[in-house]
Amino acid sequence: MEKSKALKAHADWHGKIEVVSRVKLETMQDLSVAYTPGVAEPCLEIQKDESLSYTYTRRSNLVAVITDGTAVLGLGDIGPAAGMPVMEGKCVLFKEFAGIDAFPICIDSKDPDEIVRTVKLISKSFGGINLEDISAPRCFYIEQALKECCDIPVFHDDQHGTAIVVAAALINALKVVGKPEGQVKIVINGAGSAGISIAKLLLQMKLGKVTLCDRQGIIHKSDPANNPAQEDMAKVTNLEGATGTLADAMKGADIFVGVSAPGQVTRQMVSTMAPGAILLAMANPTPEIFPDEAKAGGAAVVGTGRSDYPNQVNNILAFPGIFKGALAVRAAKITDSMKEAAARGIASCVGENELSADHILPTAFDKRVADTVAKAVSDEAVRLGIARI
Amino acid sequence: MEKSKALKAHADWHGKIEVVSRVKLETMQDLSVAYTPGVAEPCLEIQKDESLSYTYTRRSNLVAVITDGTAVLGLGDIGPAAGMPVMEGKCVLFKEFAGIDAFPICIDSKDPDEIVRTVKLISKSFGGINLEDISAPRCFYIEQALKECCDIPVFHDDQHGTAIVVAAALINALKVVGKPEGQVKIVINGAGSAGISIAKLLLQMKLGKVTLCDRQGIIHKSDPANNPAQEDMAKVTNLEGATGTLADAMKGADIFVGVSAPGQVTRQMVSTMAPGAILLAMANPTPEIFPDEAKAGGAAVVGTGRSDYPNQVNNILAFPGIFKGALAVRAAKITDSMKEAAARGIASCVGENELSADHILPTAFDKRVADTVAKAVSDEAVRLGIARI
Repeated sequence: MEKSKALKAHADWHGKIEVVSRVKLETMQDLSVAYTPGVAEPCLEIQKDESLSYTYTRRSNLVAVITDGTAVLGLGDIGPAAGMPVMEGKCVLFKEFAGIDAFPICIDSKDPDEIVRTVKLISKSFGGINLEDISAPRCFYIEQALKECCDIPVFHDDQHGTAIVVAAALINALKVVGKPEGQVKIVINGAGSAGISIAKLLLQMKLGKVTLCDRQGIIHKSDPANNPAQEDMAKVTNLEGATGTLADAMKGADIFVGVSAPGQVTRQMVSTMAPGAILLAMANPTPEIFPDEAKAGGAAVVGTGRSDYPNQVNNILAFPGIFKGALAVRAAKITDSMKEAAARGIASCVGENELSADHILPTAFDKRVADTVAKAVSDEAVRLGIARI
Repeated sequence: MEKSKALKAHADWHGKIEVVSRVKLETMQDLSVAYTPGVAEPCLEIQKDESLSYTYTRRSNLVAVITDGTAVLGLGDIGPAAGMPVMEGKCVLFKEFAGIDAFPICIDSKDPDEIVRTVKLISKSFGGINLEDISAPRCFYIEQALKECCDIPVFHDDQHGTAIVVAAALINALKVVGKPEGQVKIVINGAGSAGISIAKLLLQMKLGKVTLCDRQGIIHKSDPANNPAQEDMAKVTNLEGATGTLADAMKGADIFVGVSAPGQVTRQMVSTMAPGAILLAMANPTPEIFPDEAKAGGAAVVGTGRSDYPNQVNNILAFPGIFKGALAVRAAKITDSMKEAAARGIASCVGENELSADHILPTAFDKRVADTVAKAVSDEAVRLGIARI
């Protein structure tokens, strides 16, 4: 992909999304229904019962894609205006994959409380909030605070989207290697927002024992190198209290999940893992280890974030269906069990007869996935009693 | 217009606007240009030069329609969610009349400083800000503060849109009655946001001497009944220091402009005006005086806010073209002289040969108007040196 091609395409598009009218406006009579005086009627109905905003406005199908521009792609803190092309792209994906209207908003503040307040104050204009590319550990605080003060789903995709697709990949990869869920030893490298979220979801799903690693090596309790989020995780992972390097952690492990940096894993390290090793090496664009190299080290199943290798872990498999399912039943939030339902929904899109070491996930362009995920998520919301229609 | 018809239409529309994709997304290659990894390129360019957000994102054609729901139509303070049908309607008008993408945001706060801060923090996502249905006197403070802290046009349509169309109507009405601009005596009834904005624009355009009236009668200096905005206006209007009622003010006046309440003006009051009297009676839906009654009192030209009488004063004639013109040259703001240019642009849409007592304004559905207004506004921005392309 040449630089100039992406720039030219973006200049030609002049924006990747567009706001259009759903109303025929040809006569004064049309205007008097859609605008004054007719428009007063839905206003008055919503004033009496705010839930009618889902009936009379676009809210029921509308998600805000919100960033502060502090962790855009791998580019870091590039600011709100510079983050917009990514947010517009995300909105395109929402529309293409789930038929959801998504609108990008970049907030020009780095103060978590101010960001929370801003999102809260505009939240009645939307049916859901997708947080995007907000740096850790601020993203944890911002998402948690918004979940507490908003009565619509709030979802930080960089954390949970990736976690859900990783979980889906592991569910199927375990089938391929013939190991049951629950018994396996999982090493996650990269204890930022994605890594921590992956660890939490895998623990919640009881997929196996989890050890988290970061630059300082194996995350363990009371290590001064831990940030507060890592210290919290040290209480629920690495229950043996192991210390050491990533290489130490990987010895005998069944699963490696990388959300770290290129080249962190060598063939030799893979060779120390348990037989039937599964690696999801998702550093972008260069993975922790390339699939050929991992297989040469003895790996049975390898996935990356890339589309040019098998088993692409792409959160496009998760977020469209998750929001579609949550919006469909007007769920008040997206719970852990709804995330698990989404992961199992994604995994179910690869039939038993299709399943293989090179096919543990549906392809990113498989548009059946969003509906399957949506159904799983909305069913779970209904089961939990948090559906509002 | 029956209530049920508007409700059914709104329920069927399920939102009057929609966010759609401008991008063809059929292959992984498409995705790699519009999203990762290609999207990093426009992000990096905007990071280097923020003005490129107008090239690589939708910003150059995107206006936020923002309310706090405190003064929606004539319904008063109905709250942010209930105001949304009006805001969506406004967005439809932006698209239909000027091709502008407009997106509605309702802010759930009544604190002016918090509203200002919220809008400021999201302003880099937009090319312009249209404030709507915010109650007076808060709207003055909010608009002024936003103008000072945002580098994109901020325009409170309820104030300025109406003022511009009133000015356009008066320019042409004066031609019809054969009176020159500048010599006439103008009475404005209703010293809220619209009335004060009309007074300011007519004074700036030197259309005539202005007297403002409100519930307390003629606004004059140091009247304890004045609110701060009215006291400010008392310094630049009613220079003779007259006191008395609206009826007193109208004696000998050339022009009456009503943004007040139904039935405030009687036939008898009209009969005391100067010959060739012009009345714009814009209380909605029932005007200060009906046209037949005003003419029976001796009026030469009468306009209202209604589409079922001649000379409808409708701000749809103004805001689409104003934003289109400001966006076209990326003007940093919308100045008083750009508003005057817009008024003269609207007036020019009625040719000398079409001009009559029953035809002083183009019809609300005349789609030539927006382009004429846009040209006048962008030319003026260029002349002022505030165009940025």
